[in-house]
Amino acid sequence: MHESDAGLLAPGRAGSAAEAATGDHAFLRAMLDAEAALARAQSACGLAPATAGRAVTGAADAGEFDVRELALRARSGGNPVIPLVAALSAAVDDASRPFVHRGATSQDILDTAAMLVASRTLALVLEDLARTAAALARLAAEHRDTPMPGRTLTQHAVPTTFGLKAAGWRSLVLDARDRLTAVRDGLPAQLGGAAGTLAAFPAGDDEAGLRLVAVYARELGLAEPPLPWHTLRTPVADLAGALAFTAGALGKVAADVLALSRTEIAELAEGSGGGSSAMPHKANPVRATLIAAAARRAPGAAATLYGSVAAEDERPAGAWHAEWEPLRDLLRLVGGAARDAAELTEDLRVSPAAMRRHLGLTGGLIVSERLAAVAEDRVGRTRAKEILTEAAVRSRDTGSPLAEILAGEPAFEGLDLDELTDPARYTGCAGPLTDRALERR
Amino acid sequence: MHESDAGLLAPGRAGSAAEAATGDHAFLRAMLDAEAALARAQSACGLAPATAGRAVTGAADAGEFDVRELALRARSGGNPVIPLVAALSAAVDDASRPFVHRGATSQDILDTAAMLVASRTLALVLEDLARTAAALARLAAEHRDTPMPGRTLTQHAVPTTFGLKAAGWRSLVLDARDRLTAVRDGLPAQLGGAAGTLAAFPAGDDEAGLRLVAVYARELGLAEPPLPWHTLRTPVADLAGALAFTAGALGKVAADVLALSRTEIAELAEGSGGGSSAMPHKANPVRATLIAAAARRAPGAAATLYGSVAAEDERPAGAWHAEWEPLRDLLRLVGGAARDAAELTEDLRVSPAAMRRHLGLTGGLIVSERLAAVAEDRVGRTRAKEILTEAAVRSRDTGSPLAEILAGEPAFEGLDLDELTDPARYTGCAGPLTDRALERR
Amino acid sequence: MHESDAGLLAPGRAGSAAEAATGDHAFLRAMLDAEAALARAQSACGLAPATAGRAVTGAADAGEFDVRELALRARSGGNPVIPLVAALSAAVDDASRPFVHRGATSQDILDTAAMLVASRTLALVLEDLARTAAALARLAAEHRDTPMPGRTLTQHAVPTTFGLKAAGWRSLVLDARDRLTAVRDGLPAQLGGAAGTLAAFPAGDDEAGLRLVAVYARELGLAEPPLPWHTLRTPVADLAGALAFTAGALGKVAADVLALSRTEIAELAEGSGGGSSAMPHKANPVRATLIAAAARRAPGAAATLYGSVAAEDERPAGAWHAEWEPLRDLLRLVGGAARDAAELTEDLRVSPAAMRRHLGLTGGLIVSERLAAVAEDRVGRTRAKEILTEAAVRSRDTGSPLAEILAGEPAFEGLDLDELTDPARYTGCAGPLTDRALERR
Amino acid sequence: MHESDAGLLAPGRAGSAAEAATGDHAFLRAMLDAEAALARAQSACGLAPATAGRAVTGAADAGEFDVRELALRARSGGNPVIPLVAALSAAVDDASRPFVHRGATSQDILDTAAMLVASRTLALVLEDLARTAAALARLAAEHRDTPMPGRTLTQHAVPTTFGLKAAGWRSLVLDARDRLTAVRDGLPAQLGGAAGTLAAFPAGDDEAGLRLVAVYARELGLAEPPLPWHTLRTPVADLAGALAFTAGALGKVAADVLALSRTEIAELAEGSGGGSSAMPHKANPVRATLIAAAARRAPGAAATLYGSVAAEDERPAGAWHAEWEPLRDLLRLVGGAARDAAELTEDLRVSPAAMRRHLGLTGGLIVSERLAAVAEDRVGRTRAKEILTEAAVRSRDTGSPLAEILAGEPAFEGLDLDELTDPARYTGCAGPLTDRALERR
Repeated sequence: MHESDAGLLAPGRAGSAAEAATGDHAFLRAMLDAEAALARAQSACGLAPATAGRAVTGAADAGEFDVRELALRARSGGNPVIPLVAALSAAVDDASRPFVHRGATSQDILDTAAMLVASRTLALVLEDLARTAAALARLAAEHRDTPMPGRTLTQHAVPTTFGLKAAGWRSLVLDARDRLTAVRDGLPAQLGGAAGTLAAFPAGDDEAGLRLVAVYARELGLAEPPLPWHTLRTPVADLAGALAFTAGALGKVAADVLALSRTEIAELAEGSGGGSSAMPHKANPVRATLIAAAARRAPGAAATLYGSVAAEDERPAGAWHAEWEPLRDLLRLVGGAARDAAELTEDLRVSPAAMRRHLGLTGGLIVSERLAAVAEDRVGRTRAKEILTEAAVRSRDTGSPLAEILAGEPAFEGLDLDELTDPARYTGCAGPLTDRALERR
Repeated sequence: MHESDAGLLAPGRAGSAAEAATGDHAFLRAMLDAEAALARAQSACGLAPATAGRAVTGAADAGEFDVRELALRARSGGNPVIPLVAALSAAVDDASRPFVHRGATSQDILDTAAMLVASRTLALVLEDLARTAAALARLAAEHRDTPMPGRTLTQHAVPTTFGLKAAGWRSLVLDARDRLTAVRDGLPAQLGGAAGTLAAFPAGDDEAGLRLVAVYARELGLAEPPLPWHTLRTPVADLAGALAFTAGALGKVAADVLALSRTEIAELAEGSGGGSSAMPHKANPVRATLIAAAARRAPGAAATLYGSVAAEDERPAGAWHAEWEPLRDLLRLVGGAARDAAELTEDLRVSPAAMRRHLGLTGGLIVSERLAAVAEDRVGRTRAKEILTEAAVRSRDTGSPLAEILAGEPAFEGLDLDELTDPARYTGCAGPLTDRALERR
Repeated sequence: MHESDAGLLAPGRAGSAAEAATGDHAFLRAMLDAEAALARAQSACGLAPATAGRAVTGAADAGEFDVRELALRARSGGNPVIPLVAALSAAVDDASRPFVHRGATSQDILDTAAMLVASRTLALVLEDLARTAAALARLAAEHRDTPMPGRTLTQHAVPTTFGLKAAGWRSLVLDARDRLTAVRDGLPAQLGGAAGTLAAFPAGDDEAGLRLVAVYARELGLAEPPLPWHTLRTPVADLAGALAFTAGALGKVAADVLALSRTEIAELAEGSGGGSSAMPHKANPVRATLIAAAARRAPGAAATLYGSVAAEDERPAGAWHAEWEPLRDLLRLVGGAARDAAELTEDLRVSPAAMRRHLGLTGGLIVSERLAAVAEDRVGRTRAKEILTEAAVRSRDTGSPLAEILAGEPAFEGLDLDELTDPARYTGCAGPLTDRALERR
Repeated sequence: MHESDAGLLAPGRAGSAAEAATGDHAFLRAMLDAEAALARAQSACGLAPATAGRAVTGAADAGEFDVRELALRARSGGNPVIPLVAALSAAVDDASRPFVHRGATSQDILDTAAMLVASRTLALVLEDLARTAAALARLAAEHRDTPMPGRTLTQHAVPTTFGLKAAGWRSLVLDARDRLTAVRDGLPAQLGGAAGTLAAFPAGDDEAGLRLVAVYARELGLAEPPLPWHTLRTPVADLAGALAFTAGALGKVAADVLALSRTEIAELAEGSGGGSSAMPHKANPVRATLIAAAARRAPGAAATLYGSVAAEDERPAGAWHAEWEPLRDLLRLVGGAARDAAELTEDLRVSPAAMRRHLGLTGGLIVSERLAAVAEDRVGRTRAKEILTEAAVRSRDTGSPLAEILAGEPAFEGLDLDELTDPARYTGCAGPLTDRALERR
């Protein structure tokens, strides 16, 4: 099949469970699930014979339909539900045929399918986030007191701990988990008919249409929507936001791993770095790279989805169609990134020795803040700043450690400069903050 | 001041409360509020004399600082807090001076200020959303049974009611309200010091830094953060998502108003349309236009903010700086759009007569779905489709109403075709759906 | 193949030539073309035996490789070239094997492949743009003097002609053509080796590497790059801009078609509108809808590509990987939209009668600008505005045409009000502008 | 003025020439320039008395208008031209008053003003790009043979030179220059009247309107547009693309500077790093940080502008209004980034010593590619890879240089391993490539 994509340009997701859960076949299955649930719901509500629900459910077997043919036939009407309904109708007996897709509109089926796909994919994502969070909890606990340079604007600032860093990563992952879970639990079924009035369900009374929607949603395991949401796109926007955030959250972990994996830094390394086609020695941080790529792409996809919220009429000419692939892209990007994050964090190699070595790189300047505070109390802020700026220059120029340079300085007379300039003794509340962060479940 | 902007290119927000709440002056005030709260918190925790908190609070008067000068001096260090701290220090007495900004980093102050500005602006936005929701509730109730064409892909589909449309708009506005409220209620203060370890707060014990953060947050009326979030940007991402969604939700209302205000449609009109410089007769839907413009811009700003979640180190070199203006832009775009939406919906003119007239435009074809369902039960789906497609063509070609064309058709024998082709009798559950939607508070 | 996509969510491109030209198989073929060209170039430059070039070229048959397997094996190194080189090496004889991929890096092959795919796809796009421009030229010429309402901010403003509108559309299409052509003609081959220094090509002299690049580019029919551009991403950014603009240009045509196809307006109709699953009478503007959807998605993809220009080092960890799918998406979105635009414009149905009818909708107010200018010369701007505003109100309230209302008005005494209020006589330079626009080739 | 912004959140542009050239005052001036040019053009074409052109030009003094008041009054009509015309009319004598804005529409003036502002700002940007390119040419020439590690996916790959890196940066800057220059040279004036037909210019003959446009454009120093481009937004899209690319090009320089400025790497340093409020020793790469921030923001703004190309009708309700601020933002982001890039590159400190030291960090593995090629010729690819992988592991574990480890290895017998493992002798065509790149003017 020359026209189909098999993930050649997508190593971030190729072979992942999220890929299978979001492929054309998964969408086909979800559309058929929606049609089957609709038929069963009509049977249950007395709007169709009991046999209809069973017959449609039996015929709604994704293996029996040709995805490519549906794709090509989707073109004339602009969506794949139209040819699917024709094919599904052909697959059921004459008596049940009138009840296939009865009263529904294409968007009912496609939107419902998208919610099913999202729900199923998020379950996989949440598993990988749980693995990631667990791995990070172990790292944070193990390295609660492993000092390392805190870096701001690329420069050493003051010491921190790797435990606090890992605890921070974990808190982002849990934030993502909480947002995704909340969104997933509210994903609604879609059913409204041609213009969202449920008019084509030949109900006995005013409220029958509403009851049908409730049964339909229950059959699908999705939430019952308060209103048909053909152009009330809150669920899609909620997915966009939670997924874009998750990509960013995992991207933060990746950004740190990439910075700290640099050849000169090497405080972290991926457990199994990726090889190179030309350089046998290279161990590339491939997992982090692929996560970083996903984090770069997610915002653009989310922007398209947010842009589609402003959809005119009862079905927009373009805004709806513009959602389908970006929503799938987001699910896949996050699905792939979550798998990579789990592998990355479970296999991450940490070098406390490198961290410790780097704390000495500035000859003690990494604790200049602490020295400034001490000196300030003795000689005032202006003089303290002068002393330290001068010492910093001398330390940089001569390579002498700060403790040595400041030894004769009256502002520090009588103080234990070795202790004062020991980075490991200037990690503040990093420990208690880590503890507190790890209490979160 | 030739360098400053006064809203000339921003009619959507000019003069709005949200504009004043997000201007440079408002940010300056919020930064000073943060500095003052920090000083008071240190006083309260025994880390500074009681007089320091009072002195800094007294000096932190935005009227005493020159915004432009601070902006220019912000350049060398890359953020406005550095010159602000210098200016604020100069404004307090010698004894209190050491306690200005003590232990904090620029990002503590700027992030806290952004959260204060966001919190204050969201309060204004929520007021306008409440006005909008109330106006929409009135419209929905009043027009519960006003039939109008439901439109999909620009074409008449089946009838709906304006009540259901207004109820749908309102549900989006309430969705926005709920999301903004949830985000606002959790906006946290920021305090971590140079690298987020709280190391520079000379606390007596391990947990003292954490207590200081709690007092600081309470002084500011912001949430206490579980961790310093210098590079854990959940609050900013949450704002991005909720604001982009709100812009889209209001944009949906605007998109519908724009479509239905077209000269040929005129089912809706803004109460006070905007004039034209050249055409005295024009009454442009200016409010809707400005909302639509905001909805087009919000996704790009949100994308930038989501992109900044993947921030390296303990403070990133660029990702943080890239947040400031887009976050403000989003607050302003939504602030302006919410004001416009309140005015738009409170003054919206509805023409049930035009709606009714348009229901007849297709000569009854707007209820062809209903006819198809009836015919299907009698002659099967294939034959029913044939009959109606043929009738549709004849109706389009001859201008005759469908009831007339179908009069002799055996498939409809014995049925009341006038009743069957009356659009007002084919609005399905529009009424009950509207009622249910209005029950939401 | 459950994991592969066959276009089910992409009716805009399904079955298009651009789809086949951008599929995984097309990328595979292009990567093999790059490997083969490299081997041939080395043979030609005396860096490899002549047999090597032939052998690699012979083995580089896309039909012999399994895309899905390559995709899965791409994961460990993060790109598909690594497994492809292994597979290609296995497919050549022992003597030629050392010359497979010799001296190259993965990015050389993947970037070159992307340029080949882009070049091949743009050729298809340009064909469809040529068809579109020709169709629009015919429409513009035919309707040079067909008056219709000019609409601004959804309201009738002053008359224009459909010829000028079609000529404007065509000018956008030609702008797109010019930009795409310029970009395509400069698309460069990529060859630099591991870090862009060409170090691994065991050349006899300093300039030999440069000669090799020239031959390689010539073999591929791509431009010779002045420098290896692993992290100098001008070609990708140029593609992003030209493609996003093209999507927007076609999106402008679609936006107008959608507006003018509305049931109430019906000045335009797609030749073969798309059907509905539930409403036999509907003829949806499906081509325009799919183009509009593409125009909504392109900016987000382009933004991702522009964001990847700021790529660190000699190969970035993420920014490069983030380009692959968005670049393909853009090519496909534009490829599909160009096909749809050709079909749309070739089959577009224009209703001069509807246009004419709508010119009368405002009872002559559509030429109020003209009347204002005339009256201004006689009674001054202020009084003229008063007269016309009042007349506009009366016309709207009573339904009387403006000519009638103004009949007794002294400001217009002695003038031919029927002529003055005839919209067809107030189309300004629409004709000459159309002529001039059509002169462009 | 509490509502106005003075750059407090924008250190990247505060005080820059581009800021002044894009402020509200600059837009006001440009709008007045457009009005004055229109009046003069009408005088020149005999459509207005000669005095009118002079009078309007005289009155069009930006110092005489209140930007904030115009901004507030812009709200009712949705754009600032409407109140500006009223104020300008009031400022001219009675005889000239009718010729103020005569025949024009608001968009004519605002679009023309935007092109003037863009043109003026690009002149400033191009100056800073010229400075940047010159500084980079000096760096590239000076460091033509300064070896340094080439880095891919954060890891050392093979050696490169700083000369080639600087030459690559320069080529990007020149690419940006070429694109900006081409766009600037074609920026057109806008003149079309209410719906783009030039109908309201009471011309003597059909072509008079076209002549007027030519004179108007000449008066403004802008290109003559082939058609009014109210909804043919090629100029805005061209600006978006060229500016987003420029931001990315400068962002590439910044990304490299940031990576190479890291405390552990320190191969580069900004000449005057930015201070910290708390850590006297820090010298932050502030220029690079601000450029990086601009590069992160530009794509979102460009996306909004590309999205506005698909603008319906003769003036869209929202898409046009959505352009104003993002276009200005882009000009400012690039204007600020270009200033920062000039300063950054002119003052950049390069440490060849650090580069040299890092070449040794992998104990020779940085030239493993070279060794592999040599060994391959002797023992085949598979065995060569084995040997080097093993040696790499041993080197990493023992810290011994590769030359030593491989000393006894038969595959390298008789070769000068010191020469073979000298990184400075494995920079390939870096020198000639640099030379060639510097030939570009």
